[in-house]
Amino acid sequence: MPRLVDHAERRLAIIGAAWRLIAARGIDSTNMRDLAREAGYTNGALSHYFSGKNEILRASFEHVFDATSARIERSVGARRGLPALRRLCREVMPETEETLLEARIAVSLWQRALNDPYMASVNAQALDTWRAQMVEYLRQARDDGEIGDVDEVLYANLLMTTMVGLQVTGVLDPQSSAASQEAMINLILDGAKAAFPPGRHTKVNR
Amino acid sequence: MPRLVDHAERRLAIIGAAWRLIAARGIDSTNMRDLAREAGYTNGALSHYFSGKNEILRASFEHVFDATSARIERSVGARRGLPALRRLCREVMPETEETLLEARIAVSLWQRALNDPYMASVNAQALDTWRAQMVEYLRQARDDGEIGDVDEVLYANLLMTTMVGLQVTGVLDPQSSAASQEAMINLILDGAKAAFPPGRHTKVNR
Repeated sequence: MPRLVDHAERRLAIIGAAWRLIAARGIDSTNMRDLAREAGYTNGALSHYFSGKNEILRASFEHVFDATSARIERSVGARRGLPALRRLCREVMPETEETLLEARIAVSLWQRALNDPYMASVNAQALDTWRAQMVEYLRQARDDGEIGDVDEVLYANLLMTTMVGLQVTGVLDPQSSAASQEAMINLILDGAKAAFPPGRHTKVNR
Repeated sequence: MPRLVDHAERRLAIIGAAWRLIAARGIDSTNMRDLAREAGYTNGALSHYFSGKNEILRASFEHVFDATSARIERSVGARRGLPALRRLCREVMPETEETLLEARIAVSLWQRALNDPYMASVNAQALDTWRAQMVEYLRQARDDGEIGDVDEVLYANLLMTTMVGLQVTGVLDPQSSAASQEAMINLILDGAKAAFPPGRHTKVNR
């Protein structure tokens, strides 16, 4: 079905153009005419793929999560436990040109998700999916003796919240760097490694 | 100088109206006419206090940080170490109606800070100030024996990043709750408590 593939590919190309414009000049300064020009379409041709700016913004937001999830799947492969967890984190953290661009799009569009239930559910589903993956990798890490007997839901929640925070600081805090991001994730995982091994709960003074 | 005080107070009241509108319907759906009506001014009278929407948004953003810093100062008082640190965190975390409203404003305006150097510097200065306070409280906690010999800059960075992440998840993640927020901060501080005491560095297997 070459026509359907073409349609999907063209939508992706338009989303790419939207990402570039939103990142370069901000969401408020991006209108349909600019989007059409950046994507190489007339206004009329663009409307064949998206009904308007709002639909392009929704698709741009969804694509941040889809692209990240696809990279996570490729990067993790058959790995499990801590190596898998670290690879998941690295695809979400804004360390590279690609992930920094995704962070700019996420920060640009979270405010719209506040008043757009569809975008809010896209965001919530992505966070839930990644958190569930992290819980699974943490359980494997515990079973394999890589970490102690931790509350894996709480650890996954802290890792996810940290990575959400990094989307903001990665693009807005001049102090942020790939090294500081890695150091934070290591600090969290060091806590999990230092926890009591499963079955040896002789906690004192707590 | 009653006139100057009046002017500052009226600006604050207009910022309060702007917060309510931004939180209720989003930044894109908030225009000067609505702002004037919500604040109880005519368009012309409003322009006596703010030159336009952009200046109101900048002042609204700054006020998030000013209001939070004022609350931190009041709440911390003469405390030091971990009790001071916990009080700082609690004023930043979106746990109450007031701090949840501030989180909505922060999330709404971070995207504008991406393309507004003034707003970006307001944000960076606030994060720097709070991080420096946290570093100081962590040093006191170490000196007082409340925590071990930790990298206080790294811990402050992780706490700050977590609190930035909580601004987003607090208003966008249905899973977020005051209890889950507290649990994450406790998890980080438990790591600091479990670290080696100052002067006793006999790390094995690391």
